[in-house]
Amino acid sequence: MSLVRVHNFAVSLDGFGTGEGQSLDAPFGHAGDRLHRWFFGTRTFRAMQGLDGGDTGVDDAMARAWSDGIGAEIMGRNKFGPQRGPWENHDWTGWWGPNPPFHTPVFVLTHHPRPPLEMAGGTTFHFVDADPQEALAQARAAAGGLDVRIGGGPRTVRDFLAADLIDHLHVVVVPIVLGRGERLWDGLEGLTDRFRTETVSTPSGVTHLTFTRA
Amino acid sequence: MSLVRVHNFAVSLDGFGTGEGQSLDAPFGHAGDRLHRWFFGTRTFRAMQGLDGGDTGVDDAMARAWSDGIGAEIMGRNKFGPQRGPWENHDWTGWWGPNPPFHTPVFVLTHHPRPPLEMAGGTTFHFVDADPQEALAQARAAAGGLDVRIGGGPRTVRDFLAADLIDHLHVVVVPIVLGRGERLWDGLEGLTDRFRTETVSTPSGVTHLTFTRA
Repeated sequence: MSLVRVHNFAVSLDGFGTGEGQSLDAPFGHAGDRLHRWFFGTRTFRAMQGLDGGDTGVDDAMARAWSDGIGAEIMGRNKFGPQRGPWENHDWTGWWGPNPPFHTPVFVLTHHPRPPLEMAGGTTFHFVDADPQEALAQARAAAGGLDVRIGGGPRTVRDFLAADLIDHLHVVVVPIVLGRGERLWDGLEGLTDRFRTETVSTPSGVTHLTFTRA
Repeated sequence: MSLVRVHNFAVSLDGFGTGEGQSLDAPFGHAGDRLHRWFFGTRTFRAMQGLDGGDTGVDDAMARAWSDGIGAEIMGRNKFGPQRGPWENHDWTGWWGPNPPFHTPVFVLTHHPRPPLEMAGGTTFHFVDADPQEALAQARAAAGGLDVRIGGGPRTVRDFLAADLIDHLHVVVVPIVLGRGERLWDGLEGLTDRFRTETVSTPSGVTHLTFTRA
């Protein structure tokens, strides 16, 4: 059976996976890039930007696992773009540029479906109005037997955790206090009882936690 | 100048320093002992119980720093006992037994002062109705030039952080999701800008964070 995985999901000490005030210019709101600085120095991130070099330590090892064996992604609408409500037009094709880094089918959860959007490099965005179970069934059917990644944001990961659909969860705790935004952990009391957890801190100051279904 | 220090302050991934439903039998409410299991195996904890043995690794090194050079403690009333409102009597002398582990003056913050309580082993509880600055002035005067420890609970630590009175903060992040209780980080947006932080995880699964005034 293919697994359902979350990778590189960064939260602050107070549990926020994104800041307040998300917009086109500020995908993570007032958090800015603070939740992801640990990632920018890695070889994995630089390769996604078409750049050479980068660190190949533990941060990179954790980061690079995100794409291995993944056949489809499910993401919340806010990870596709900052629009809310009905689509005003279909011209803007997301935060991810003409060649998005996913290279698989991507299922965007939205109450406002629109036609699929086929991008260069193998990424096709499908816009679906579905609950977690239904979306996962669609993603699995498209994944060709490979694993399905839940790409975020916080509400999407939380909903899939609440529905007990996640097999592997990788969270990166960043030592900052954001104070406001969208929390990952709300409503998930006792979550860790369902998982084996491991913890490792790295010189960048973050802590990687992995949750493996027990 | 003596420092103001916090040690061994454990929080869940969702930032709760104590659970909901504190009572005489459940000082940490529904959290039970889950926030402190990392501590029980240490030589430091066992010595506090009059027991030999225990681990002497990183958890112990972090734990044992709590008493070195401390001349007084300030704690919230909930760390002294579960009573709320006016004291019904003075017979019960706190959660800490006849020989409390503090061995210094201890200033208990309460809106309901009562006479000082002198215990065996050098601990005297003083009950003071004071804001953080006033309480710290009293504790410093009693500390004989040594450092002052802010002992908790979450609200007390938070109030002293908000007043920018803390020089050293040691937080232990425990990989559990409590869901409810009293949060440490609320209202402290941007806190880490004032500190240099270090992070280390240990085989017990917890992560020790230290915050040193920048």
